[in-house]
Amino acid sequence: MCRFLAYLGPSIFLDELVCKPQHSLVRQSLRADQAKAVTNGDGFGVGWYGELSSPGVYREVMPAWSDENLLALCSNVRSHLFFAHVRAATGTGIARQNCHPFRYGPYLFMHNGQIGGYGQVRRAMEARLPDHLYAERKGATDSELLFLLIIARIESGQSVTQAVSQILNETLAMMQVLNIHEPLRFAGALADGSQVHAFRFSSDQRAPTLYLRQDGANGLVVASEPLADEQDGWGLIPPGSVVHMNAHGVSSSEALM
Amino acid sequence: MCRFLAYLGPSIFLDELVCKPQHSLVRQSLRADQAKAVTNGDGFGVGWYGELSSPGVYREVMPAWSDENLLALCSNVRSHLFFAHVRAATGTGIARQNCHPFRYGPYLFMHNGQIGGYGQVRRAMEARLPDHLYAERKGATDSELLFLLIIARIESGQSVTQAVSQILNETLAMMQVLNIHEPLRFAGALADGSQVHAFRFSSDQRAPTLYLRQDGANGLVVASEPLADEQDGWGLIPPGSVVHMNAHGVSSSEALM
Amino acid sequence: MCRFLAYLGPSIFLDELVCKPQHSLVRQSLRADQAKAVTNGDGFGVGWYGELSSPGVYREVMPAWSDENLLALCSNVRSHLFFAHVRAATGTGIARQNCHPFRYGPYLFMHNGQIGGYGQVRRAMEARLPDHLYAERKGATDSELLFLLIIARIESGQSVTQAVSQILNETLAMMQVLNIHEPLRFAGALADGSQVHAFRFSSDQRAPTLYLRQDGANGLVVASEPLADEQDGWGLIPPGSVVHMNAHGVSSSEALM
Amino acid sequence: MCRFLAYLGPSIFLDELVCKPQHSLVRQSLRADQAKAVTNGDGFGVGWYGELSSPGVYREVMPAWSDENLLALCSNVRSHLFFAHVRAATGTGIARQNCHPFRYGPYLFMHNGQIGGYGQVRRAMEARLPDHLYAERKGATDSELLFLLIIARIESGQSVTQAVSQILNETLAMMQVLNIHEPLRFAGALADGSQVHAFRFSSDQRAPTLYLRQDGANGLVVASEPLADEQDGWGLIPPGSVVHMNAHGVSSSEALM
Repeated sequence: MCRFLAYLGPSIFLDELVCKPQHSLVRQSLRADQAKAVTNGDGFGVGWYGELSSPGVYREVMPAWSDENLLALCSNVRSHLFFAHVRAATGTGIARQNCHPFRYGPYLFMHNGQIGGYGQVRRAMEARLPDHLYAERKGATDSELLFLLIIARIESGQSVTQAVSQILNETLAMMQVLNIHEPLRFAGALADGSQVHAFRFSSDQRAPTLYLRQDGANGLVVASEPLADEQDGWGLIPPGSVVHMNAHGVSSSEALM
Repeated sequence: MCRFLAYLGPSIFLDELVCKPQHSLVRQSLRADQAKAVTNGDGFGVGWYGELSSPGVYREVMPAWSDENLLALCSNVRSHLFFAHVRAATGTGIARQNCHPFRYGPYLFMHNGQIGGYGQVRRAMEARLPDHLYAERKGATDSELLFLLIIARIESGQSVTQAVSQILNETLAMMQVLNIHEPLRFAGALADGSQVHAFRFSSDQRAPTLYLRQDGANGLVVASEPLADEQDGWGLIPPGSVVHMNAHGVSSSEALM
Repeated sequence: MCRFLAYLGPSIFLDELVCKPQHSLVRQSLRADQAKAVTNGDGFGVGWYGELSSPGVYREVMPAWSDENLLALCSNVRSHLFFAHVRAATGTGIARQNCHPFRYGPYLFMHNGQIGGYGQVRRAMEARLPDHLYAERKGATDSELLFLLIIARIESGQSVTQAVSQILNETLAMMQVLNIHEPLRFAGALADGSQVHAFRFSSDQRAPTLYLRQDGANGLVVASEPLADEQDGWGLIPPGSVVHMNAHGVSSSEALM
Repeated sequence: MCRFLAYLGPSIFLDELVCKPQHSLVRQSLRADQAKAVTNGDGFGVGWYGELSSPGVYREVMPAWSDENLLALCSNVRSHLFFAHVRAATGTGIARQNCHPFRYGPYLFMHNGQIGGYGQVRRAMEARLPDHLYAERKGATDSELLFLLIIARIESGQSVTQAVSQILNETLAMMQVLNIHEPLRFAGALADGSQVHAFRFSSDQRAPTLYLRQDGANGLVVASEPLADEQDGWGLIPPGSVVHMNAHGVSSSEALM
């Protein structure tokens, strides 16, 4: 399990959300409140859109709480759309290649959750990747794999929601064939430089928490946990749904599957 | 605040204490029970005596819980005398040079605690180092500094207990001159290859915990916290005292100051 | 391209070969003489057999020349059979999971070379892994993949030479189908705790160098480059051949394919 | 010895100088042409001025050539004034705290060179730091120490040239007292957010190389080596001199001492 946040709005310094709040993501790396794992110290990453179509990504294996480079980067880089993620590894190794967010072309993706019995379904899932995305596989996580599978669907013309729904359904089907009873849990965010899509799903009753803050002129924030102790303004995204956001606000919210 | 353990006894694989116990030091790096800081993820180190007079030291800035090298080392290296330490930084940076244990010649040292107002007394304390030990200063911690000051006293002919007592007294005196009201807390261990000296002290009523387990044929263990949930066999070392151990067992225990 | 060495003989400290010689492996990490890449600074690793059937492995992403932990480990650990490797990455990322030697059960493997057009043949090669070895894939290198494929053959009853020959032949066949004209180059070493097998092969005329030193009471050393400037006692292993070594010396040498 | 570059001019992406040129600084980290050390793989750093008065700094212990974060940062961050440095350690440890550039308030500093007999003069030099700068000492390098000593002079009202001259003179005097015959070599750059000062000095005839490129609309670059194989437009700064640059170009050039 991990913690993450996504921001879309007027251009701000990353540290406004990543480092400064009372219960910032950096704080959550050391002491999360609503996570299965209290400590999210197995690496971290930030991804941000600037002047280029392709986002910048900074990922590191150290805990977020102790990395001075992260502080420097976040207090000096502005963006209208950025992701940040702190990792609690669930079985795959500690490596930058296993840290979120993942990037492919203009897309960024990050994830909190787990595919039940991943070791058993991994091979069948990787087999569904088209060659050019198979070649993009750098690490070993279920998260990177889900991302590349979703990208394949998007490239074949599906909407983001269709793509995610279909991949989750296919994964569940494979898990069923292999008689896996552990749940598929999936809180995720996908961006393309102008839009952010946030997903909350689980095959059991315990979808990872995911909150949305809509604050007029101050932009939109999606986060695993509210960034302040008082949770005013933070609404829990319902399980099984997806929220779409763009420069005009929350464009729509729909059932995921 | 940090967590540590020291072992002296029949040669065993390091993982018997560092990795395998229910509440092992690696486990304490993620979730300590009796520490000011629950998480001790700002680096770690092990030091062990083998065939040479000078001990081997392995120190790393990653959290102990996620380092596969530590596991491999501990399950393949045996020693009759070893130290292990997990760090929670208290103001100085994350660097191997700031990780414990520290080594000088045949000596190993590690520490849990803090010099109140360290930023203010550091300079006066460093000024007391003889030139050849000043040149050994690689990092910025109070722990390394205390170690080098203690070494200077030992080199000038004092016993270990005299050396530690005098350095603690001098530090307290400097703190008083500078009107520092934060406490001086010091749980430490010093080894020379055949003996281990363990210290527990604080200028206030809250000396960092330090336990001793004497288990006949199984050797002696000093640890910040018992390595198992049931604490049978673990005795708290009284504040203000030092315990001396060698191959024949606990040779003596005396008041530190 | 990388540099490596393997030792089999009386138990010695690792630093006797890894750190101390005039042209030690650590020296080669900074300045190799006979390598395609002069600098081999993209991580390193050592693997050694001790009291257990499974070897210890220490791998790190820093250059070998600057890692104090490597020095400490090598000057304090003895072994009768050890591997050491310094890496010059050829397209796959910097991560411990991509560093040599690789371990599986009692086996250690390391490699210097490259599969031509690896990005194109990778998928077809991974498809040949049995499920339980597919699940062992932690990184992205061609080296780890070759190792797991060789293990699969060994597990199915083939000799080490048969296994390596067949995997090289299959790889060449796949490269031919895909019309890849870059060469397949392979200098490698495989150990099981009592035997070491060293291979030198290339599909073109430029097999990576691999030397053997047989020095009576001082054990056997296989290395990418002689460890001293004068090369007395170092014989180049002929391309297309394999050398088998055990406690009694070089047991045999045969054509690889 | 190290390699570095400084840029002042119209805002550009850092990778225009750090990564893209034929003989970029990243390339120099692996293969420098005019350096005492061919390989500069002991860490690196970049510092850049953006919207804030205090610059951003990113420093890492890995070689620059293999760090994907550096590439991402440099291709996504723009600046009108930035520093970049690749390190070849000369006796002090590998740690972020020992990587350049160093920052203090609005100042950035980086250095290529060495104080002869540093181990002997270090203590006397540190003794000259005022308390508040002594407390800023995070690492162990001669470079950081020179920087803090120069800052102390600037804070006491001296010009940058006066400050550097005086510190170099004092260092030479201390070296003479201690009968040190190794040279004092110093190529350095200091910035305050609007100006860059570049220095080239040695007490012997071999001052580290330092080049200046003035290219009208394209800004000013100071670099240890020209960034392209053809060296048109690159002029060697004379030994014993300092060059001052601001938004209007090279404001002046004068003898350093």
